[in-house]
Formats: sequence, structure tokens, C-alpha cells
Amino acid sequence: MESTDSAVMDKLVSLAKRRGFIFQSSEIYGGTGSVWDYGPLGVELKRNLRGRWWKAMVHQRDDIEGLDAAILMHPRVWEASGHVEGFSDPLVECRNCHRRFRADDPEIGGDQCPVCGSRDCFTEPRMFNLMFRTFMGPVEDAASTVYLRPETAQGIYVNFLNVLNSARQKIPFGIAQMGKAFRNEITPGNFIFRTREFEQAEMQFFVEPRTDEEWLEYWKGQRMAWIVELGIRAENLRFHEHAPEELAHYAKKAYDIQYCFPFGWQEFEGIHNRTDFDLSRHQEYSGKRLEYFDPVTQRRYLPYIIETSAGIDRTLLVVLTDAYHEEEVEGETRVVLRLHPALAPLKVAVFPLVRKDGMPEIAVEIHAALRAAAIPSFYDDSGSIGRRYRRQDEAGTPWCVTVDGQSTQDGTVTIRDRDTLRQIRVSANAIVEWVSDQLARPYVPPPPSARSASG
Amino acid sequence: MESTDSAVMDKLVSLAKRRGFIFQSSEIYGGTGSVWDYGPLGVELKRNLRGRWWKAMVHQRDDIEGLDAAILMHPRVWEASGHVEGFSDPLVECRNCHRRFRADDPEIGGDQCPVCGSRDCFTEPRMFNLMFRTFMGPVEDAASTVYLRPETAQGIYVNFLNVLNSARQKIPFGIAQMGKAFRNEITPGNFIFRTREFEQAEMQFFVEPRTDEEWLEYWKGQRMAWIVELGIRAENLRFHEHAPEELAHYAKKAYDIQYCFPFGWQEFEGIHNRTDFDLSRHQEYSGKRLEYFDPVTQRRYLPYIIETSAGIDRTLLVVLTDAYHEEEVEGETRVVLRLHPALAPLKVAVFPLVRKDGMPEIAVEIHAALRAAAIPSFYDDSGSIGRRYRRQDEAGTPWCVTVDGQSTQDGTVTIRDRDTLRQIRVSANAIVEWVSDQLARPYVPPPPSARSASG
Repeated sequence: MESTDSAVMDKLVSLAKRRGFIFQSSEIYGGTGSVWDYGPLGVELKRNLRGRWWKAMVHQRDDIEGLDAAILMHPRVWEASGHVEGFSDPLVECRNCHRRFRADDPEIGGDQCPVCGSRDCFTEPRMFNLMFRTFMGPVEDAASTVYLRPETAQGIYVNFLNVLNSARQKIPFGIAQMGKAFRNEITPGNFIFRTREFEQAEMQFFVEPRTDEEWLEYWKGQRMAWIVELGIRAENLRFHEHAPEELAHYAKKAYDIQYCFPFGWQEFEGIHNRTDFDLSRHQEYSGKRLEYFDPVTQRRYLPYIIETSAGIDRTLLVVLTDAYHEEEVEGETRVVLRLHPALAPLKVAVFPLVRKDGMPEIAVEIHAALRAAAIPSFYDDSGSIGRRYRRQDEAGTPWCVTVDGQSTQDGTVTIRDRDTLRQIRVSANAIVEWVSDQLARPYVPPPPSARSASG
Repeated sequence: MESTDSAVMDKLVSLAKRRGFIFQSSEIYGGTGSVWDYGPLGVELKRNLRGRWWKAMVHQRDDIEGLDAAILMHPRVWEASGHVEGFSDPLVECRNCHRRFRADDPEIGGDQCPVCGSRDCFTEPRMFNLMFRTFMGPVEDAASTVYLRPETAQGIYVNFLNVLNSARQKIPFGIAQMGKAFRNEITPGNFIFRTREFEQAEMQFFVEPRTDEEWLEYWKGQRMAWIVELGIRAENLRFHEHAPEELAHYAKKAYDIQYCFPFGWQEFEGIHNRTDFDLSRHQEYSGKRLEYFDPVTQRRYLPYIIETSAGIDRTLLVVLTDAYHEEEVEGETRVVLRLHPALAPLKVAVFPLVRKDGMPEIAVEIHAALRAAAIPSFYDDSGSIGRRYRRQDEAGTPWCVTVDGQSTQDGTVTIRDRDTLRQIRVSANAIVEWVSDQLARPYVPPPPSARSASG
């Protein structure tokens, strides 16, 4: 039994709070508009997601370097990027697709959104800049105005030559970065999908101009493969190519990777051919030459940039949504998060069946051995065993180890699989090795028919 | 030969830029005041430092939960914390110790700093709040004012009950968090020591009121042990206990861990007994009960909080400074970063002695095997072998593997140790295992006398 309607979002928000994935920010003060905090399980899920991206994009490649640029940048950066000018007009926003338009745009005269086709969908016009503005230094005036970055990408562009030279790279190569960005959205919403403070994972790949189209296709393939390897179901993923009227001012061609959220198909990552727009603008505004000198052809040129730009919070929402399942088990509804084991905050939970007869001692020992091997484990001896299983199902923990009466006789324990509900007996001494082996394997979510009704 | 004077800072800044550890933010635009970007090696060093803190403070303990709260919080949080009121007066700042005082403070009437004793050291008085102010939503007015958090700790306090309940913890337990904070410092400086945007690693430990003093001593010991295990020399570390006049308004007792920087002894981490100040203030300002119910004693109480608060950038500066060495080797000055191998951005560099005779093929294979084993490796075939060694010394890479003529005959390669300069021959097939073994060992920096002059 799968819930596919919009009620799924309410259930996700509720589970996320109950199990400590995501809390509303400043909840005891009534909350902060569309800002969220990651709790004990959420921060581990996010760390695992970040780590997986960094491994694939930086550690496993010789042609990509990492970077961690600051949130506060020189204000001229945002003049060069187009962010200061691009949002200084009175704007209306389509309540449906969230595109913004100048209020005097002739295309919206018919009160029909030219992108998504909605009618009567526009907010009142407002003088509005998407960027959060603040002041550096003791005086609050125009000269001290700085902005919270609305994207991490510009930190990469302005460091292009510093990274190229210090890392002794040659084109083609990329620079990858993860970090916070801020946008003063008029219409935030849908839980962690559209928020004012969010985290990006962006990679900018610098290429020879005439090779840009093939690199765009390469990265389109790489990024889709990455999300599929996380176990996200292929039928919930698709590419959306931007039509000419959708393309941003800097883009020659652009693809979104979309996911079928409970609130419809929406983008969580974009792959863009940004041409030499960014480097040429920064060259113009900074007065510094940003050309690359090719040691083989002896030519100087401004590289083209292929960008892969993912929202980490959005990707996390993809992961949570795709993992969320409800099923009937023995007449009760079981809620389970089928998280990829590499992403699961806890890999194992360890239970003594009862709090006596030597069972807690064995369970504590297994738990300690798992922790010592850096395998996140949770010890739980409270409530019925069925209830303990259900808690771990909601946390997405792949394996539950139970120490029972037989354990004290023959040294074996049960391992219960989150997805299939099947149980096997394994020697208590072999648990660390067994779990390590499982974690090294690719994860394939089971088809519904393979799920046992026991458990 | 050790450089201990203030010129070391200039050398560190220069090395950090040259090797891609740290760049000035928005450098092509003339820089942003006291804001820095972490380059390819810097981001890895920072990641390793963060990972080590998280492992010790969260993953290896059952009594600490992780959290990742947002930078933007409800503005009432900063009224409760004292940050709005505490900085709304005209202030002067001591240029030496950076303490701020109300301009009308009778203690500074003699123009002598009551904390550090400096004379004629005060800035002109200014109406100044340490917090960066911005506006959420389309209208910029008092009602939409929000602040960039000046510390991560408050995100922990307001989530105390959410974490307690969802993680099913019992007191004593802690909540740990890493993340950016922002302070509009009047006098930033000393490279990444005092910056307006910085990263914190904070842990708040909730305890029964009458046990606070012993927990303060426990965490004082734990945190010093952690920094010593990073290989930081004990003679450069000390505790500084706050005198009554130094104590913050929330603190009953406080220790700094100080490092002997080139610019003097300065704090990079604090361990504080904050009593129940924070929870009682948030209880008062939010109107929500934040008491803990002890299931054993059946008592309700507000826990006391022992805080460990570290600056990640400052700790990174401790690591870089302590690792920086200059020595005479064969009549030339060798600059070397003696980083703990667990922190080093690159663990291994692989060189073919020359670019022919089958050496590059073997070197490429070793490099690929290291990468496949998730051991960060750098391949370098350019310049003399001595120059390649020097580059890796400056990057802090513990081991350099060189493929030479003998390698093509008997399958062995040399491994050169960064600290001792000693070389050994090891089978090329055994490199991954050899490096993994080394990384699993505790690191003890060699005494100066143990350093060979060959290499």
C-alpha cells in the first residue's frame, strides 16, 4: 500500500520531527519562516549525502579540485554576476511555478504565466531583490553593504586562477564546492524544498569552448547515474530540457533533473552550459585577466563552463520521499524508510530481547564492537521487540540485531532485514564483519513482491 | 632552525596561498575585509579536522547527539541570549586584547584596559552591535529584522527538548554542532584568527545542577587530550582560567585553551560552565517549559550546561602554525608542514623518476590503486625529483613514492618519509597496505635530533 497523494508530505514532516530528522527552526518561538534545523538523524543523513557527493566529485577524480569559499563576498561580485541588476525592478511572481517576471513584462499582460501556463497566478508587484543584504563594519550605509551569497558558484569563478595555479591543473578540469546560500524567496514552501537558507553542492567544469556540448552531455549522464546509484527509483526521475524562454541569461543550454515529488515534478539539480559568460564578466568587472594559457596549442582563451548545481536539502527530500513506504504487516500499517544503507544515519540497532538472563551484556558488547569499528549503532532495551523494530523502520536502520535466549546458549543472534523482514542467525562475533560486507555491496531496493509478511 | 618571530605569519599566509590552502576572499576584486576562502588543500585539511572532531564528540559516544541548526533564527532568540541588549550601547574596544567595554564604564576611566592592562589602547566609542543584521521578506523594517547567528550554541538550546525526546536521551547527555557564525568585529586580523565569518564546533553538555563542577573538569581534560592527540606540541598549549572580571555574564567558571601563536598566547577553544542561564532565559522568553523530568528521582529541573566551544578556523591555524618548520637540508632551507597524517590533505604523492622506460606506467598504477582505496594521492611527473619532494613537504604530504630504474627490474619502489627524510624500498604491490598501516598508527612528531640530513 503506497500513499501517493499530498498527505505524504504531512506524514513526512511528522516523521521527520518524531524521529529527529528535521525540526522547524526556533520552534519554541513559533518558528522562523521556512527555515529548518537538522536533528540527530537528519544531520547524519545529510553528512552521508554530502560525503557521497564529495567522494564521487572530488576524491575519486584527478580532474576536480575542492573549494570552500566564504558566504560573504565583495559586493562587486554580484554586480558582475548580474544579481544586483537582475532583481532591482518591481517583480511579480507566479504562485505556481515560482518564476519571477518584471511587472511591466508584456508577456504577462494576459495574466497568464508564459512558462507554466497558469492563469491569475501572479503576486502583487514589489521592488524586490532576491539577495539578503547586510552591512560590514560599524556604519550601515551603501558603502558597507554586502550580500549573503545567493549561490556558491561565484566563489568558484573568482578563485579560478588561484585554484588552477596552486593545484597545477590543466583544462579540462573542475572545481567543486558545498555550502550555504541564501535567497529571500517571496513564496517559500513545501518543507525543505524551497527555503530561504539552503545548502548547495556545485561543480564548475572548465573546458575548451568547442568541447562544451560534449561535456554537457557527459555531466548530464554522470549526475543522473549518481542519483540512481542512491537507490532512487528510475520512474520518479526525468530530465527536463529548458526551452529557449526558460533559459537563464547566462545559459546556452540547460537540463534539470526532476523528481516526482508529492507536489509534482520539480527540479533538484541542474546541468548548465554557462559558456564564457561568468569569466568574461568577472574579467570585465575586476580588470584582471582570467584567460587560460594552453601549454600545448600556445593559445590563450576564456574557458567555457559546464555547471552541475544540486540543492543538498532538495536531494535529501528526494531521498526521504523515495524511501518512505507504508505497508500492511500482520494487519498493522508499517512505516518504513528504505534508505540506501550508505545513507542511513544508523546502520544497526542492537536489542536484548529482555533485560535479564545475560542478554543485555551480550548486546552491549556487540554495540560497542560496532561503534569501535566506526559503524553507527543504536542500543535499545525499552518496550516490546515489535515496537523497537518499528522505531528503527521509521529511522531507516537497515539491520536490527536481537540477542535472545538462544544467544546465551550458542553465541548466535538474529539479524532482521528492514526491507524483506527476513531474519537470519549469525554468530555474535561475526556481526561487525557481516555488516561491513553488506555495506560494501551495491544496494538494490526489493520489489514489493519480494517482501515477506512476517516480522 | 626554527622561525619563531612574527615573520612566521607572513610566511604562513604566503605558503597557504601558494599551495592552495587559503586564499583571500574575492581577491580579484581587492579582497573582502578579513574573509578567507579555503582552497583545494585547505578544504581537505578542514574536512579532516571537522571529521576528527565529529568522530570524537559524536560517533564514538553514546551520550552526545549531533545537530545542524540554521544560521537564520527567530530574532527573539538573540533577545533571550542577551546579544541584542548586550551590544546596543556605545562601545570602545581594547586594540590589544579585543575586549569591548561600554564607553561610560568607570573601570576604563584611567585609559588602562582592566583586563590586559594595556594603556592608551581604546578605539573611539561607537554605537555598535556585534551581530550582522538583515531582513527576511520583501519589506526592510524592524519587524522583518533577523540576525546572522553570532554563535551556534543558541541553536542547540532552543532544540534541547526536540533532541532529548526524539533521540530518547537521558541526562547527562550532550548536543554537538558545527557550522558558520558571523560577528561584525571592529578589529579583525591575524589571518584566519579573528574573522567576521568563521566556523564553530560547539558541544553543549546538559547535566544535573550539583554535578556541574565535576563535568567541567572532565571536559577540560577531554578537550586538551583531543588537541594533544593531533600532534600539537604540549609546550605550545596551556589553560587560562577566567578571572572573575573576565567571566561572561552567563558563566560561573570558564577555561580557555590557549596556543602560543606567533602573535602571542591566544584562545582557540573555551570550556564554560554556563549554569542554567541559557535554558532559563529561553524558558522565560518563549513561555515554553524547558525542564527535564528525571524518571528515577521523579524531579523536574533545568539542567546546567557545560559548553566546549572551539573555533575551527582557529584550530586550523593552530595546526598549520605548529606544523610549520624550516630546516637546513644540504645547505638549502627546507620548508615542511609536519601535519598529523590523519589531517594531511594528501597522504601520498607518486612520482616516476623520469617520464620514460616504463616508470610512468607503474606510477600511474600505484596512484590509481591508492585512489581506489580512498587514500588521497597526488601524481606528479614534472620537474626534478628534489623539487617534487619540496612541493609535497610544503603541502604536508607524509609519504612520497618514487618509481625508479630498479622498480622496472624488481617491482620495488622507494617511500620517502616527510619528517625523517629516510627512504625505504617496498614492493609496489604493497603500497596501499603499507600506507593504510601507517595511517592506523598514532602519530608522534620526531624530535629535531632524529631528523636525517639526507634527502
